[in-house]
Amino acid sequence: MNLRTEVRPDDRDIVRDIVESTGYFTAAEADVAVELVDERLTKGLGSGYHFVFLELQGSTAGYACYGPIACTVHSFDLYWIAVRREFQNRGLGKQLVRISEDEICRLGGRRVYAETSGREQYVSTRQFYERCGYNVAAVLTDFYDFHDDKVVYVKVLPQHRL
Amino acid sequence: MNLRTEVRPDDRDIVRDIVESTGYFTAAEADVAVELVDERLTKGLGSGYHFVFLELQGSTAGYACYGPIACTVHSFDLYWIAVRREFQNRGLGKQLVRISEDEICRLGGRRVYAETSGREQYVSTRQFYERCGYNVAAVLTDFYDFHDDKVVYVKVLPQHRL
Repeated sequence: MNLRTEVRPDDRDIVRDIVESTGYFTAAEADVAVELVDERLTKGLGSGYHFVFLELQGSTAGYACYGPIACTVHSFDLYWIAVRREFQNRGLGKQLVRISEDEICRLGGRRVYAETSGREQYVSTRQFYERCGYNVAAVLTDFYDFHDDKVVYVKVLPQHRL
Repeated sequence: MNLRTEVRPDDRDIVRDIVESTGYFTAAEADVAVELVDERLTKGLGSGYHFVFLELQGSTAGYACYGPIACTVHSFDLYWIAVRREFQNRGLGKQLVRISEDEICRLGGRRVYAETSGREQYVSTRQFYERCGYNVAAVLTDFYDFHDDKVVYVKVLPQHRL
């Protein structure tokens, strides 16, 4: 298994591929995932988008995208975490979260936020964050659409994690 | 009084000027305000940033910046609202909110979100949103910094506002 934090132009296709393979995201959401790769390619780390790619058996099995939240001292967003369908159920998602958190800690981050939908379809996503030690910080009613709330998770990182 | 929704290159300075005159925002926050003008100048409405400038007595008295939230059907963010110090306490802020909400309604928006700090210094900002009909939707503890919560306000726009 290989970890890669450098971002390359072909990650545009790789990210779209991974995100679409999960069946969890709309086309518009996949576009946003690719846009973050574009921003990073154009602006470098100044984009505020950090990436971790997990490479396994000659394939990019999954990735995470996170970054500091502007105008905050120690808050980070975990923007994306996705594992290619055929690599799911092996703990790779949990590993991506742990690696991202370690890096966030190194960057001085103390609070990690992750957002997802409150819909029935996302119960496994919410359980995933809960298993990773995330707690519900807020529920914004009808945020995405009528009967589609936004659930905001937070994890407070211990000061001496590393 | 004149309303302007077109954005011009000199709005970079105008926005910085207005934001700094209020004494409410840090230098980093003023930079973010100007960045949104830049994004709009570069990408047009595709940036997702809409502006309203209020012109009064040959001066730009205040402005608001709002836009659709990606991957939502009907949610908008009210990113910025600021009135130049010497034009405050005349109801211009409330007017900017009302104009923004009307435009959001026209664009199909139903929920408007505004975020501010929970610190003592921002009690007048919070009261302002409350007077404009906004309700607290969430409080994210220590979001901006230790002892500096984020307060998320929401206003649900009536379907037949216009």
